[in-house]
Amino acid sequence: MKIDLILKNANIYNVFINKWVHSDLWILNKKILYIGDSSKYDINANQIIDVKNKYIIPSFIDIHMHIESSLCTPKIFAQEVIKHGITTVVAEPHEMANVFGKEGISKMIEQSKNPYIDIFYGLPSSVPSTSYDLENNGGEITSKEIDELMKKYKEVICLGEVMQYRTFINEFEDIAINNKENKTIELINSVQENNQLFAIEGHCPSVTDLDLASLLYLGVNSDHCLQTPESMINRFEQGMFVELQDKSIIKENIDLLINGKYRGLYSFVTDDCPPNIIVEKGHLENIIRKAIEFGLPFEEAITAGSYSPAKRIGFRDRGAIAPGFIADFLIIDKLDKDFNIEEVYKSGLKIDLKNRIDKSLEKNFPDNFYNSINVHKNFNIQDALTIKVKENKTHSVKVMRKNSKSTYTDLIERSLNTKNNELDWEYKDTNLVLSINRYNKNTFGCGFMDGTCIKNGAFCSSHAHDSHNILLIGDNKKDLELAYNRLLEIQGGIILVSNGKIINEIPLSVAGIISEINMNDLSKMVIDLQNNLVKYGVEHANPLMSLTTISLPVSPNIKISDKGIIDVRTQKIIDLFN
Amino acid sequence: MKIDLILKNANIYNVFINKWVHSDLWILNKKILYIGDSSKYDINANQIIDVKNKYIIPSFIDIHMHIESSLCTPKIFAQEVIKHGITTVVAEPHEMANVFGKEGISKMIEQSKNPYIDIFYGLPSSVPSTSYDLENNGGEITSKEIDELMKKYKEVICLGEVMQYRTFINEFEDIAINNKENKTIELINSVQENNQLFAIEGHCPSVTDLDLASLLYLGVNSDHCLQTPESMINRFEQGMFVELQDKSIIKENIDLLINGKYRGLYSFVTDDCPPNIIVEKGHLENIIRKAIEFGLPFEEAITAGSYSPAKRIGFRDRGAIAPGFIADFLIIDKLDKDFNIEEVYKSGLKIDLKNRIDKSLEKNFPDNFYNSINVHKNFNIQDALTIKVKENKTHSVKVMRKNSKSTYTDLIERSLNTKNNELDWEYKDTNLVLSINRYNKNTFGCGFMDGTCIKNGAFCSSHAHDSHNILLIGDNKKDLELAYNRLLEIQGGIILVSNGKIINEIPLSVAGIISEINMNDLSKMVIDLQNNLVKYGVEHANPLMSLTTISLPVSPNIKISDKGIIDVRTQKIIDLFN
Repeated sequence: MKIDLILKNANIYNVFINKWVHSDLWILNKKILYIGDSSKYDINANQIIDVKNKYIIPSFIDIHMHIESSLCTPKIFAQEVIKHGITTVVAEPHEMANVFGKEGISKMIEQSKNPYIDIFYGLPSSVPSTSYDLENNGGEITSKEIDELMKKYKEVICLGEVMQYRTFINEFEDIAINNKENKTIELINSVQENNQLFAIEGHCPSVTDLDLASLLYLGVNSDHCLQTPESMINRFEQGMFVELQDKSIIKENIDLLINGKYRGLYSFVTDDCPPNIIVEKGHLENIIRKAIEFGLPFEEAITAGSYSPAKRIGFRDRGAIAPGFIADFLIIDKLDKDFNIEEVYKSGLKIDLKNRIDKSLEKNFPDNFYNSINVHKNFNIQDALTIKVKENKTHSVKVMRKNSKSTYTDLIERSLNTKNNELDWEYKDTNLVLSINRYNKNTFGCGFMDGTCIKNGAFCSSHAHDSHNILLIGDNKKDLELAYNRLLEIQGGIILVSNGKIINEIPLSVAGIISEINMNDLSKMVIDLQNNLVKYGVEHANPLMSLTTISLPVSPNIKISDKGIIDVRTQKIIDLFN
Repeated sequence: MKIDLILKNANIYNVFINKWVHSDLWILNKKILYIGDSSKYDINANQIIDVKNKYIIPSFIDIHMHIESSLCTPKIFAQEVIKHGITTVVAEPHEMANVFGKEGISKMIEQSKNPYIDIFYGLPSSVPSTSYDLENNGGEITSKEIDELMKKYKEVICLGEVMQYRTFINEFEDIAINNKENKTIELINSVQENNQLFAIEGHCPSVTDLDLASLLYLGVNSDHCLQTPESMINRFEQGMFVELQDKSIIKENIDLLINGKYRGLYSFVTDDCPPNIIVEKGHLENIIRKAIEFGLPFEEAITAGSYSPAKRIGFRDRGAIAPGFIADFLIIDKLDKDFNIEEVYKSGLKIDLKNRIDKSLEKNFPDNFYNSINVHKNFNIQDALTIKVKENKTHSVKVMRKNSKSTYTDLIERSLNTKNNELDWEYKDTNLVLSINRYNKNTFGCGFMDGTCIKNGAFCSSHAHDSHNILLIGDNKKDLELAYNRLLEIQGGIILVSNGKIINEIPLSVAGIISEINMNDLSKMVIDLQNNLVKYGVEHANPLMSLTTISLPVSPNIKISDKGIIDVRTQKIIDLFN
């Protein structure tokens, strides 16, 4: 019999029995055929490679992530992460869905075919992130649309994260007992009805005990938020799958997992990974190394990056090195956190890592995706920057106070003087923040922010969670106006302006939220922007993210949308003036 | 908050962390809401039951079984097995599919709604069991039909057992490399394409190493046949799920599983369980008890009867006692093989075991299912019983030799004299065997059988694996003719005749293979028949099965179909005469 490839003399990790096996690996037409002693059989291979006792492990699978956070398109993303050993991701395109609704999801899926990694999709269950009472976006996702997309695309493999955990907990009795109408519950029911083997991804930070049980009862069965040992134990015991992202990889958490008792009940995920982290530190690989560094046994860490996530989703053809599985695997040199990925095999083919393609693309999406910033014709930026008041007295206004540690904001109060019946807010260590509708509606929210915010400049972004309206933040009108106009001119992107000069500009030409620039260049742009944001006053581990989440009304405590300032805890719009 | 039921003071088994928890169990609208301390919360329940420290375990799930083997309809089956703690089965209706094709499958599914157990379906992948070169049946299942049924019925949850393992192994190169057409491969590809999360059930007795890898490569990923410790290790290592049925529950196999290392890689199943075994010994419960008796830890055994099979199929709502799971569970009194099932809860409702319904049904299937024995108008039973020869000499004929241990038969040779140009075979310790087409085709196979076979009588059955043609076995014409005529008269069943008298008669009015008689009565009939079969010469642990598999051309070594005597090893029809 003639097969494609034999890798001889390999040390292969068997995830089923948690054992290393010294053996040969046979590959036939994209799949693994056999693991054993070739000399027993009359076999011919087109190619035989002596692996020289190196180690072969399953390549990595990331089941909870958002490609849009890498600021690039699926194809650009794929050509970069393959070198970090990722061969399968389950992406959740709720950013694109917020801009283009069902069409956005379809185009993301259709633009995901590539020779490097398999991109599956979880359909967004929370678009918009709250409701049209609190924000406007570019497209809602209904249960009918979810059903249509599930039928149409084989890439759709689960329901993406249910973000409405607060509503589910607060209104549990109404929803579960009194059958109160809820759009997300409708989606969940539809998935349970029509795709009963699909996972339903969750998002429930710090929720435990009966509150957690309520979410499980309503169908949510994973969580990827920040964990503690206690929160993990509570999830394991109640049957909720735990997805550990970078911020959850801390010593105490890893200590809990060391003995292998919870194997299969958790995996690693990246959730949101910016381009500079991918390029400089690696993707899921980075998290796996960190877990090993904190003491997780090598095999346990590999399993949580391959087989466990595959089983969570229900994949039957990946996550292990075994007959019938897709020949996706890595050849590595050693079994510690500094392991080098020497070769990556995808569907039985060796990826040329040295001459790897890292090219930019051009206009792979439909035309309307490149003309997506549509401000209403009656909106006037100068008017918006001018806050008129009737009385020329000191006014008390509500202010979102940022901090340098997290994306949480607090509500504080501030006094602002007036000048010619206009609030005098320029150059006062306080930023004006506008969220301007970009979907042809004449709405905008106006608020103030202080804490770690911009000094002597302005920031403007059309990548602004989750509705991706235009977020405009700065301490003077001139820079704000320039940043805003430039954003309109380039039809989307992230811009930093100071003293009438553009300091940084990252064009995000696709739907105003992602780019077709190759990830290396994109990464450099992001690093430069991040450095400059710090320089201009935005102290934070991730200054960019600390700004682009100012418009996310599910992130505590005070945020802003195109409909106004939002108290996230009460889910109400509040007035600017006290 | 007002919920339906609280079970207080329970010792609940948590399959996720393999631990007993002393706690309360909350039930709301068919599902489990919470496991914890009720006193912490302001909660009202319509009913509170003190379990008094008894044990609560998940109810049992059988993922590989054929309802037709119980000789009754799904509803009758359900009302019986619930008392044995079974609440979910995945049935594979290939017997009914052999009689009525796609319609047979549809009607089985539609007749499965009942208040006791959830009946899911694996679609038969091997109908007929071989090909139309070797046997005729009532309906073929094509990949187009599989696809239609998968789309139509939510109860369809996997692809049923692929029986063609021999062909897959023997023709691997042709199928996998040269793309030789194969109907079953088409089915598998279609499932992998359209239902990628579906399991593909296998049947591969004694296959190991590269042969096993070949089956895995082609998509088959479980095996429910007889196992040894070696065959199990080989399957676990290669990633094949192992389903242990009664005959595999032997000391050496259980010894391998005792340490829990292989947890999650295997489950218990019943495959074929006759009504008398269900009534007298229990269903899956019987196998679980046996495994515990051989030393498997109680918790390990329970897991292999609940959570592991659920995970194998990919169910997300059953197999554990946890929030969001269907409230299917058992209250038992102790943790050893003699545990008593004191209460069964299905979807949160207590089943009244004492006043349990055990009723017969009438004509739940369409009319044509009750008129399914259609012998061709030109077929003449007397002619068929008369084997004409040209020369009045001794003839050497091929004979299937049965044995008392298994369903295997050997080919032997025998000499028969002639009388008036007719073989003289009556009352010679040799049975004449006819397989007569019942699907309006004028075909029948004629052969001889000896070993543990019928003396002074005749056996006739329309339940005859897998094509369910009329199987007629006996040692004299008069009894054979009587048995045959009676079977036509009652339109299907199993009949034993001796000396011109009907000794046993089990009417199988639905498609000639199953009955709507309640299982208690049915069981008595079967026990009486089995006893009489032994009395009339058919020595065997399961005399009935040893006869009804004489027409199964995938069961070694020599069998018979309506097209003739079949050498199972070569898959060729062979001549009666040497």
